[in-house]
Amino acid sequence: MKQVFLDSLSLEEAISILFKHLDARGLNRLSSEVINITDSLDRITAEPVFARYSSPFYHSAAMDGYAVRFTDTFTASETSPCMLKIGYEAVYVDTGDPMPEGFNAVIMIEDVNIIRQKAIGDRQEDKIEKTKNLSPIAYSPLPEYIEIYQPATPYQHVRTIGEDIVATELIIPENHRIRPIDIGAMLASGHTVVSVRKKPKVAIIPTGTEIIEPETVKDRLPQPPEIIEYNSAVLSGLAVELGAEAIRFSIVKDDLQEIKNAIVEASKISDIVLINAGSGRGSEDYTLTAIEELGEAIVNGVSIKPGKPLIAGFVNNKPVFGIPGYPVSAYLTFQLFVKPVIARFLGITAGENEKIKATVSRQIASPMGIDEFIRVKVGVVNDKYIATPVGRGAGLLMSLVRADGIVRIPAHAEALSAGTEVEVELIRNKNEIKNTIVCIGSHDNTLDILANTIKKNYPEFSLSSAHVGSMGGLMALKRGEAYFAGTHLLDEQSGEYNIPFIKRLLSDKKIVLVNLVYRRQGLLVKKGNPKNIKGFEDLIRDDVIFINRQGGSGTRLLLDKHLKELGINPYMVKGYDREEYTHMAVASAVLTGLADTGLAVYSSANALGLDFIPVANERYDLAIPHEFMDTEMVQIILEIIRNNEEFRQTVESLGGYDIRDMGKVVYEG
Amino acid sequence: MKQVFLDSLSLEEAISILFKHLDARGLNRLSSEVINITDSLDRITAEPVFARYSSPFYHSAAMDGYAVRFTDTFTASETSPCMLKIGYEAVYVDTGDPMPEGFNAVIMIEDVNIIRQKAIGDRQEDKIEKTKNLSPIAYSPLPEYIEIYQPATPYQHVRTIGEDIVATELIIPENHRIRPIDIGAMLASGHTVVSVRKKPKVAIIPTGTEIIEPETVKDRLPQPPEIIEYNSAVLSGLAVELGAEAIRFSIVKDDLQEIKNAIVEASKISDIVLINAGSGRGSEDYTLTAIEELGEAIVNGVSIKPGKPLIAGFVNNKPVFGIPGYPVSAYLTFQLFVKPVIARFLGITAGENEKIKATVSRQIASPMGIDEFIRVKVGVVNDKYIATPVGRGAGLLMSLVRADGIVRIPAHAEALSAGTEVEVELIRNKNEIKNTIVCIGSHDNTLDILANTIKKNYPEFSLSSAHVGSMGGLMALKRGEAYFAGTHLLDEQSGEYNIPFIKRLLSDKKIVLVNLVYRRQGLLVKKGNPKNIKGFEDLIRDDVIFINRQGGSGTRLLLDKHLKELGINPYMVKGYDREEYTHMAVASAVLTGLADTGLAVYSSANALGLDFIPVANERYDLAIPHEFMDTEMVQIILEIIRNNEEFRQTVESLGGYDIRDMGKVVYEG
Repeated sequence: MKQVFLDSLSLEEAISILFKHLDARGLNRLSSEVINITDSLDRITAEPVFARYSSPFYHSAAMDGYAVRFTDTFTASETSPCMLKIGYEAVYVDTGDPMPEGFNAVIMIEDVNIIRQKAIGDRQEDKIEKTKNLSPIAYSPLPEYIEIYQPATPYQHVRTIGEDIVATELIIPENHRIRPIDIGAMLASGHTVVSVRKKPKVAIIPTGTEIIEPETVKDRLPQPPEIIEYNSAVLSGLAVELGAEAIRFSIVKDDLQEIKNAIVEASKISDIVLINAGSGRGSEDYTLTAIEELGEAIVNGVSIKPGKPLIAGFVNNKPVFGIPGYPVSAYLTFQLFVKPVIARFLGITAGENEKIKATVSRQIASPMGIDEFIRVKVGVVNDKYIATPVGRGAGLLMSLVRADGIVRIPAHAEALSAGTEVEVELIRNKNEIKNTIVCIGSHDNTLDILANTIKKNYPEFSLSSAHVGSMGGLMALKRGEAYFAGTHLLDEQSGEYNIPFIKRLLSDKKIVLVNLVYRRQGLLVKKGNPKNIKGFEDLIRDDVIFINRQGGSGTRLLLDKHLKELGINPYMVKGYDREEYTHMAVASAVLTGLADTGLAVYSSANALGLDFIPVANERYDLAIPHEFMDTEMVQIILEIIRNNEEFRQTVESLGGYDIRDMGKVVYEG
Repeated sequence: MKQVFLDSLSLEEAISILFKHLDARGLNRLSSEVINITDSLDRITAEPVFARYSSPFYHSAAMDGYAVRFTDTFTASETSPCMLKIGYEAVYVDTGDPMPEGFNAVIMIEDVNIIRQKAIGDRQEDKIEKTKNLSPIAYSPLPEYIEIYQPATPYQHVRTIGEDIVATELIIPENHRIRPIDIGAMLASGHTVVSVRKKPKVAIIPTGTEIIEPETVKDRLPQPPEIIEYNSAVLSGLAVELGAEAIRFSIVKDDLQEIKNAIVEASKISDIVLINAGSGRGSEDYTLTAIEELGEAIVNGVSIKPGKPLIAGFVNNKPVFGIPGYPVSAYLTFQLFVKPVIARFLGITAGENEKIKATVSRQIASPMGIDEFIRVKVGVVNDKYIATPVGRGAGLLMSLVRADGIVRIPAHAEALSAGTEVEVELIRNKNEIKNTIVCIGSHDNTLDILANTIKKNYPEFSLSSAHVGSMGGLMALKRGEAYFAGTHLLDEQSGEYNIPFIKRLLSDKKIVLVNLVYRRQGLLVKKGNPKNIKGFEDLIRDDVIFINRQGGSGTRLLLDKHLKELGINPYMVKGYDREEYTHMAVASAVLTGLADTGLAVYSSANALGLDFIPVANERYDLAIPHEFMDTEMVQIILEIIRNNEEFRQTVESLGGYDIRDMGKVVYEG
């Protein structure tokens, strides 16, 4: 009935088996097709292109000026200029004009004096005069001679035949991705068509009884167990980017026969078949069975994370992949297995992304025996690349959207400690990363608005904010890993925000503290407050489950301070030990019934339609090391929070924020 | 009548003026359009995208296994397992299934024992048994209980609502180029359409009375003064690559009124107008006049090389550029002026190409007061990037096709000496450059065949051969700038090839000399040998003009040796001082009448249909520093020349080559 996962192949083994099978089955470059060169951008040449004609194919003037016979010019000098009769010894040519027969040098227009024969016969004394000083209205002289001051050398300012391209020479080789400039060179050398590799056709079959087309939820809410199908669009996009053609099938139910039918159909009309989801070993996972019954399965599970349940096989001599359903697994297995096959079919190298060395900003544990691929944000601080891991679940599509790169932790490694240098494969352009404003610290919804305002007004910059709590942010500043940190740490003793912590934790650094907002913190409860929660004192009730924020966050300190004042032992609060990392996650937990209440900012309640019981008004500041104050990045932040009216109004419209001191320096030391 | 070129603006001034005018005219981001997300790959967002729904939008199983209530599992331990009744206390769930109402944890299938109630009543002693040991044929038991060995924690292996995406959060910001993964995230968060920036429309008007469509020469030779029009295809490709739409106009004659009509038409239907050629000051250059009569010209000439005659202006409030006619000028002025305007209209940064530091392999002179852009080949030798300049003429399209990058020599610099470190803007992928097999030395046509054979069989590698002559090649090996050098240096004294030179010039290096070919050198003459040339003795005839190879080339040494043997003073040879750098250039000079004869290899005569008077049989070897013998690059070269039958046969079919020792080591020391 149910299989238990067998030992998987290592990544290297799996790839090697796949390519051995492709070799054995003679599956290599696809055949070619002849297309118009003007349509060939980004296609791959299937044959070398040799020049049909030379370019230029006649001697032509390389400058505007006069064509001459160089032998006529030997006697010219500054003191004894040489006169050449226009139309006989000198012929005007524009750049690109063919050289008149027998002429073999060009004298630039700047280097000649044109001697004009005036039409008006009675002004003989003016006969020789420089054209440039003549008004065309006063005279209508005809140019008659040119006067030159030095001899011409043979073929000076002449583009000779074949100067650029000599007939028969290699223009572009086989297996070459055609660029705009290659198009020019092929046309210039006399071609109008080119033989290119056919585009590999990648069929993508989304499967799953609960899967729905994205269009379905255009006008209504999705209903459990519905899942919006989007992996096929991601896989299509990845295939198209590589130069393949994507053929997306309609959704197929979890039914062995229907899946088999779709695979057979796909294997007939495409070169590579992807079946998305159903590659695991659940009771409704039919991919393996379907491939085995129709052809041959060669890989069933790979020791990678994410992406373990990858299946590879052949049906009708076409490679067929069972792509796991989680979005990050789907993305990663495509990159590791499908991309190299597409490249092989095209006859090119599977272009690697750029790799850089970066310092890990915090410890990353990883199981032995598995190649794990960790998504990271990367930023440059103090000329050092800093990589910060983002969410690791295979289901976290947004972690991939937000990631700058991927770190591979090899099977033999157990953990990377903070400060380790690692290799990061970038999935974003390095220039973009250099313009990433790294912010590590407390989360506030205004940071999302700030991120968008930056992108809108300074498209070359972007904000990367890692949410590790206020305390974590200050520690990141200490290690020189961020430009600024959002912080709202309330000192129990003094009742003062942030400053005591900065003095204590960052005594060796000069820090400028700039206010972002004052914000209302409160207890979030379901609409209508069904459990009638009024304040912190209700958290000890038996029927109230709380959801907490992580230790080191300002919100956690705020809670602890209030509990202490009320004499409540944290152990009396059910759910005190369940921690979330953002306000929105707390709100989400309350909305979905994971908890009855949690402490968060007003805007998160507002966003999800929860009720809000205010308990405190706190100051949320940006802590900026003095050394970064003059950087363009920090100046952009200050400019926006101080002067961008759209930003300021958007923050106010979120509710619960007071922007009276936004941008004001509240401490410097 | 004719204008003389006025002083041009500096590059910075010209760009600054252009952008000030765009500001003043309110020409900024284009308006938006709403399109299907599945069609949005590579488009630029015109608005931020916030999540409509959370994802997941219900609690679901994150593993295949049994959903349980965690409170039912508190007592479980290894010694005292807990039994849960299937269907009541434990419900089977596949990954992704919604959690049944009231259930709040999942126990992985691997961590449970399934207890089956056997259908056959008389085997009570077997009642409790692990499923995995049961053959489904022998028994048909129904699962009844699961047995677990440790308590479940709340929400273990459950994907909670909003784990990936929380409704209202920012998915992607404005001004963001949409990637496949972004498409997934937008669909997952409930969107089906997205607002993107309209594609800037770039109208391209090719002008010139002598310009012909590439199709014209499909079946006949081009005739002077015809010029095949290809710049518009290059400019179109460059625009499309940036995310714009190219509208190519039909060729317009050099007629002011027709050009004006085309500009007016283009300015109505596009956002940017490019007029190609006619931006200079020749008698048929109408671009400036046309723009001035229709609107306003703001830039007329820029102090850059190539690309000086660039014109910028506005017609109907649309930016209009006069793009110079030479292909390299057209390419460069597009990159410098048109690309940033397209980026501005799209709301993105004009993505910069990657820049690397490289060592210049030979001196480059450059005029003061002009920003010169030098095309270079780049290779990695001894972990050092080596940049070698390629042809510098603005008309040399192939120099751009072959280039790996561009070096900017600023206006205030006069020359870069060999060994200078420069910044190279790469126009080819860095990985490709790392896989470039750098060969510097004598030119032979077989190197073209080798280049294509490499690309065909090892698509990740490519051959870069810089033709500086045999001697130049050995000097490059000495400086550690090439993997190997092609060389055919005949020692006058000993009559021996290459070895005496290597001993003399490379005494400090261990060199392996591998034969490539023996080849016939001879005098090339026009078909039918109209001047009846029979040998070197004819070179002193009054009616014979010779074309020479550059000093340091093996062919030059061969000539000099023969002249010496015949007692001919080189000064008696007309054309002795006119030097070309390749065999094909010599052949081309003879074909086109620049010279009556020149010394070159048979294959070049064969390629251009010239007659060939053999004068010597010479040995052409590859000199390879011993330290590089084990590199993959050199091993590929050796493998091809020794074992690739297609390569060997193609070389033989060129004519004039003897491959009997191809790949043989002829010297090692």
